[in-house]
Amino acid sequence: MTLENSINVIAKAARQSARKMAVCSTTNKNQVLETIAKKLASQKMTIQTENQKDLEYGREKGLSNAMIDRLTLSDKVIDSMIQGLKEVAQLPDPVGSVKDSFIRPNGLQVSRVRIPLGVIGIIYESRPNVTIDAAALCLKAGNAIVLRGGSEAYHSNMCLSSLIHEALEECGLPGEAVQYIPTRDRAAIKIMLTQEEYIDLIIPRGGEGLIRFVVQNSSIPVLKHYKGVCHVYVDEGADLSMSENICFNAKVQRPGVCNAMETMLVHKSIAPTFLPAMARHFVDEGVELRGCTKTCEIFPETRPAKDEDWGAEFLDLILAVKVVDSMDEAIAHIDQYSSNHTEAIVTSDYTRAMKFIREVDSSVVLVNASTRFNDGGQLGLGAEIGISTSKLHAFGPMGAEELTGTKFIVLGDGQIRE
Amino acid sequence: MTLENSINVIAKAARQSARKMAVCSTTNKNQVLETIAKKLASQKMTIQTENQKDLEYGREKGLSNAMIDRLTLSDKVIDSMIQGLKEVAQLPDPVGSVKDSFIRPNGLQVSRVRIPLGVIGIIYESRPNVTIDAAALCLKAGNAIVLRGGSEAYHSNMCLSSLIHEALEECGLPGEAVQYIPTRDRAAIKIMLTQEEYIDLIIPRGGEGLIRFVVQNSSIPVLKHYKGVCHVYVDEGADLSMSENICFNAKVQRPGVCNAMETMLVHKSIAPTFLPAMARHFVDEGVELRGCTKTCEIFPETRPAKDEDWGAEFLDLILAVKVVDSMDEAIAHIDQYSSNHTEAIVTSDYTRAMKFIREVDSSVVLVNASTRFNDGGQLGLGAEIGISTSKLHAFGPMGAEELTGTKFIVLGDGQIRE
Repeated sequence: MTLENSINVIAKAARQSARKMAVCSTTNKNQVLETIAKKLASQKMTIQTENQKDLEYGREKGLSNAMIDRLTLSDKVIDSMIQGLKEVAQLPDPVGSVKDSFIRPNGLQVSRVRIPLGVIGIIYESRPNVTIDAAALCLKAGNAIVLRGGSEAYHSNMCLSSLIHEALEECGLPGEAVQYIPTRDRAAIKIMLTQEEYIDLIIPRGGEGLIRFVVQNSSIPVLKHYKGVCHVYVDEGADLSMSENICFNAKVQRPGVCNAMETMLVHKSIAPTFLPAMARHFVDEGVELRGCTKTCEIFPETRPAKDEDWGAEFLDLILAVKVVDSMDEAIAHIDQYSSNHTEAIVTSDYTRAMKFIREVDSSVVLVNASTRFNDGGQLGLGAEIGISTSKLHAFGPMGAEELTGTKFIVLGDGQIRE
Repeated sequence: MTLENSINVIAKAARQSARKMAVCSTTNKNQVLETIAKKLASQKMTIQTENQKDLEYGREKGLSNAMIDRLTLSDKVIDSMIQGLKEVAQLPDPVGSVKDSFIRPNGLQVSRVRIPLGVIGIIYESRPNVTIDAAALCLKAGNAIVLRGGSEAYHSNMCLSSLIHEALEECGLPGEAVQYIPTRDRAAIKIMLTQEEYIDLIIPRGGEGLIRFVVQNSSIPVLKHYKGVCHVYVDEGADLSMSENICFNAKVQRPGVCNAMETMLVHKSIAPTFLPAMARHFVDEGVELRGCTKTCEIFPETRPAKDEDWGAEFLDLILAVKVVDSMDEAIAHIDQYSSNHTEAIVTSDYTRAMKFIREVDSSVVLVNASTRFNDGGQLGLGAEIGISTSKLHAFGPMGAEELTGTKFIVLGDGQIRE
């Protein structure tokens, strides 16, 4: 069988099993999640033996320590996958919930009811825990899943997905509802992206290169997240201590994640009082500042920013700082450089807070709170499968509900169209 | 300037104007719609002169009478565009409406608020009235639009889109919020479909060929509607007169549209009492019946169905009829042949009604009502831009709300992440 045929067989089987998953009860789906959790605990040794093969292969290929670290299924990582499964089992089931319901003048009762999307394809890079985390959320929402992870995690992913397969069958559901594309051949991704007839949605998780490749080659809709270039704008008249707390938290609490602040914009009238202490606090914490001319004047330890520092996703203890003449300049700067991910304003002015909310075009816009709150758990969605930076279907963190759609149900008593 | 450059300039200008449209007031948007309506009325002569050029070109090219008819901007068609604009002006504005709002344990107020999608690309075939109808709904939802109609309607479309441009500018909004790709060159479509950076969504309207072409070539998400192969299943024990009314309405009231019934499934236990009178009624109305063996036995004027009749979108006075042994067989048949558009059951049994609703995977599922109700107006959405048969973002009729997304707004008083 050619690679194309075998992927076609997988996708078709996923589509067939999706019909069964769609009508499966919440109890049954939660049972699957709990069974997977039990298997992870009882088969930890097997998982780690398979993971060891990947780690050896990775070391031979000369992967960096950071890459090896992401690849490792330590006891701690396995425990967190188990914990994640339990949390997803406890989330409300979005399927069947009614979004809208009303009666038309002719007596028809029209409702919009949540249904699974169908078959979701996940294409991801090195972390093998995505196999469990992503599958759990997709299954909770009643979907079938086709997984394709990084080639360096091949053995780990194959092992984890076969555990899911077993759990599904033990719970009386089709094992084909979760399938892993069983090859390291990169050509498989391109073929997967043409299975438009069987796969309803592709979610790529990884670096910008992977995501651009997927978007360019997919005839299936893609929910994507390129990067997080998040801004905090400190307005004139903002509370100084609140501004400092929020900016510090946004940059330093976890600098390597997509919702960390990358650029701080400061209104010129507050800059002389706010910037010196704030900058000192950052520098003491090891943050490298790259600023505009005015920032450098106010805080001479600042390195002059280059053009490419605006709009950069540092994911590190580096911060671009710009003093702006007006809030309009701040919004225009955000418009030009942001990745539509997360932006915050610190202000005490009502009108300006409302204007910022209305005009800033990002998935999460905050007033007087840290950018770090753009997260499914923090915003009350439960677990998340990623953060979408495009507006179609979902914009911002995607939880179980964002892995569903709606259909119309129309209840009549003989109505016909005149 | 190459074609590629000129389309790039158009798409970029649309993106820039989208930012202004997004924050424009409802009053201002409605003013645009009313101004367009006035212009259509006052410049009817100009429009029809331009339309005449297309009609002459079409006749030279040997277009069928039906095609010429669809191309013609008669007084009646222009009046209906004017009426459509007035109706869209009266619809509620989806932008700014709150989908969800709640307070998190830490005091953050989290809301999801409707926002425009951004820039919508519409690719359509012969009817030039789509230029007005589609633009009106997209503008109402605060979007910018890039239009590309059929080459045979070139002059009409250019004329209509320039009226919209004028109306926007007169109302103080950027004319570039509605642009028409000013060339007959078909290569323009492929280029438009790569403007992923500037266009957020593509809606193709036309035959299956056009839609497949768009899906294959687009790196932009596509909301699509392939075809409507709609089924009505007459259950055992269904009310005979209700069944006959619904089936007759679904097939005959307007056979050329996507929500007309194409296949009627009849439970074997009701077939002997239901089918003879129903079939006679159809045949008397000029409907050609193509049936399974049992149907042919019960009503010998039926032509034996060929394999390709199941799943065919006749769009005509032709109906496929099948007698099924069970409701499960009916659902399996629908699963195999339907286009996920519209399916109805006629039944008096509660459990079977619920099962049909749950298991049938179509955008609109009806109990005891005609398939003809799958329509934005009929289901209470106001005007519609089309019917989506895929589940992502929208499934079923798409009104103004479906041309928006949501963003998260988070109001705090200094919260940081621990």
